[in-house]
Amino acid sequence: MADQYARNTVRDESPGIPSLRWDEPPEGPVLVLLDQTKLPAEEVELVCTDVPALVQAIRTLAVRGAPLLGIAGAYGVALAAARGYDVEEAASLLERSRPTAVNLGYGVRRAVAAYRAVAEQGPEVAARAALVAAKELHRQDAEASVRMAGHGLALLDELFPGGGHRILTHCNTGALVSGGEGTAFAVALGAHRAGRLRRLWVDETRPLLQGARLTAYEAARNGMAYTLLTDNAAGSLFAAGEVDAVLIGADRIAADGSVANKVGSYPLAVLAKYHHVPFIVVAPTTTIDPDTPDGASIEVEQRAGHEVTEVAAPRPAVEGGTGGGLAVAPLGTQAYNPAFDVTPPELVTAIVTEEGTLAPVTGAGIEELCARSRQVTIS
Amino acid sequence: MADQYARNTVRDESPGIPSLRWDEPPEGPVLVLLDQTKLPAEEVELVCTDVPALVQAIRTLAVRGAPLLGIAGAYGVALAAARGYDVEEAASLLERSRPTAVNLGYGVRRAVAAYRAVAEQGPEVAARAALVAAKELHRQDAEASVRMAGHGLALLDELFPGGGHRILTHCNTGALVSGGEGTAFAVALGAHRAGRLRRLWVDETRPLLQGARLTAYEAARNGMAYTLLTDNAAGSLFAAGEVDAVLIGADRIAADGSVANKVGSYPLAVLAKYHHVPFIVVAPTTTIDPDTPDGASIEVEQRAGHEVTEVAAPRPAVEGGTGGGLAVAPLGTQAYNPAFDVTPPELVTAIVTEEGTLAPVTGAGIEELCARSRQVTIS
Repeated sequence: MADQYARNTVRDESPGIPSLRWDEPPEGPVLVLLDQTKLPAEEVELVCTDVPALVQAIRTLAVRGAPLLGIAGAYGVALAAARGYDVEEAASLLERSRPTAVNLGYGVRRAVAAYRAVAEQGPEVAARAALVAAKELHRQDAEASVRMAGHGLALLDELFPGGGHRILTHCNTGALVSGGEGTAFAVALGAHRAGRLRRLWVDETRPLLQGARLTAYEAARNGMAYTLLTDNAAGSLFAAGEVDAVLIGADRIAADGSVANKVGSYPLAVLAKYHHVPFIVVAPTTTIDPDTPDGASIEVEQRAGHEVTEVAAPRPAVEGGTGGGLAVAPLGTQAYNPAFDVTPPELVTAIVTEEGTLAPVTGAGIEELCARSRQVTIS
Repeated sequence: MADQYARNTVRDESPGIPSLRWDEPPEGPVLVLLDQTKLPAEEVELVCTDVPALVQAIRTLAVRGAPLLGIAGAYGVALAAARGYDVEEAASLLERSRPTAVNLGYGVRRAVAAYRAVAEQGPEVAARAALVAAKELHRQDAEASVRMAGHGLALLDELFPGGGHRILTHCNTGALVSGGEGTAFAVALGAHRAGRLRRLWVDETRPLLQGARLTAYEAARNGMAYTLLTDNAAGSLFAAGEVDAVLIGADRIAADGSVANKVGSYPLAVLAKYHHVPFIVVAPTTTIDPDTPDGASIEVEQRAGHEVTEVAAPRPAVEGGTGGGLAVAPLGTQAYNPAFDVTPPELVTAIVTEEGTLAPVTGAGIEELCARSRQVTIS
């Protein structure tokens, strides 16, 4: 049975946002998440004591964002192990909770592998190994953020030596999606700290408004110059020459360089191409899935229609019924609601990873990035 | 002082939607509007007894849509005249209420011209002349709807002889914007009645959700096969080959064929071009403004930021303060909120008017359409 409970956090005024942490109170180990469905109105922690609770948090997007899902998945395995639940079953539940997010499966498998490797030494040792693996992934992801920010900023400075970057971003890719400061957002934050960010244009990102709710929250907390817009208004910005570069994250990158990301990314890529504006994807190499050959092979999650027919649901329901939001469309309206879209490699100017920047984006380049990443992991 | 009041209407189950009508109760003449900000939840009539009330209704989008604004403007002049207010002042107030909508100014000027032409015969005769002009514009617009629907359907059948059209539309362009059945929506409705509409894809159209609230309402009332989507998801539909044509309305067409329409139209035009899908604008010739030479000369209305930072305001406020909606972005978030965008003629496959279809879209073609329209008006 899913067991999670909410508690209000003490408002932390530092810009660092702890989106996820492992805790070991006397009652037993727990995974503590910042409930992202409550932002920006409230900072509420969600305490998960078992994997079904975590799965529910993943499905309702209380925890979300490609790299963070990987970390959450690994901790989920560690949680099941530490609490004496069936680790294989927990892993399978976790992997199925969001099909497009490749990092989730990666994190889960990495913790399971660590668990299995020492399983013969008993469940306690194995549970500890799973936790060590989760913490290691957490640490590596934070490090990857720093390196992506560095590579991304170097790329921006190379493309626009004058500085004063005007960056358009979509969805949320900051500390809330990562063990560190994120992916695309971390690059914009790096530019801000270096005094070279002129404006961060924030797409509101319907249907769940992660841009309005989360990216604006992170930008405000970091004191960045940002402006919010409806996704529709991006075209006007491009036409007015107000966008120097588009920076987005990724949920899955196929072997040919196709990028699955939040729905609305592909239209931005087409707009960017039409206006000769660089379209830059920032993602850790764990987002690359060599087993997915191309864009057409990417399974795109279809989400419930009420996310479209209602707005501002305080918390999207997992399945059926309504989301508790305000209905905006007539009753019975059918909705098309893909969570992601796929951008082909020819529309992607560059992929920035912790291992460096790939431009142009080719299958061979992706393969090399993967090899470099494996080398690092093995060494 | 603005004087408007609301009253609930008896629910009319016929698909015809009376969006605006002139009435003469014993207390004096009034203009009765269907309050579009209350749809689809409630059908409420807004009774305007003077021009400031009408201006407020226009600004809050209780009445909206290019052709209907023209009719409302003409009736507004007639209302001022019938009630003995200053007609010139009323005209000036009305013209300034929404700067991008060329039809509004057209309707206002037409009624004012009729008023002035017989002003020397006394205010009563002049008021009657203004009302006759407004009613004539109303009737002509209804007729224009029928003719646009015919020309548009002929164009679709020519482009896709097999029928089974899958049409993507943006914003709301049906009976709610017109004296008749509308512009782009009227074409889709014609296809539906002819059994040749496979699917109407309805963009929700942020920030004010006219697609979700109004187009879905009209489609449902007419029994059409429709599906709602976030504006973000249109890219996925194009990529999947699910869109045969884009049909939109227009708020102003410049002399070179540039089209100002609801924000989000231009990104659709770029997507359509990229996917070799026809992008068709349906608008009466009154939408053409020969005095606006090109797209760059079109003044684009910037609306209040709370339309973006809040959602589902039951009724957007005119200026300052909040819209009474649910805040989705952090307090103090600045928003970029253009109401319209401009699509250059090279991205427009055809402009369908009551006088016929123009393709390709050129300045010379626009000029000829205007000449044809003037001939008809003069004859």
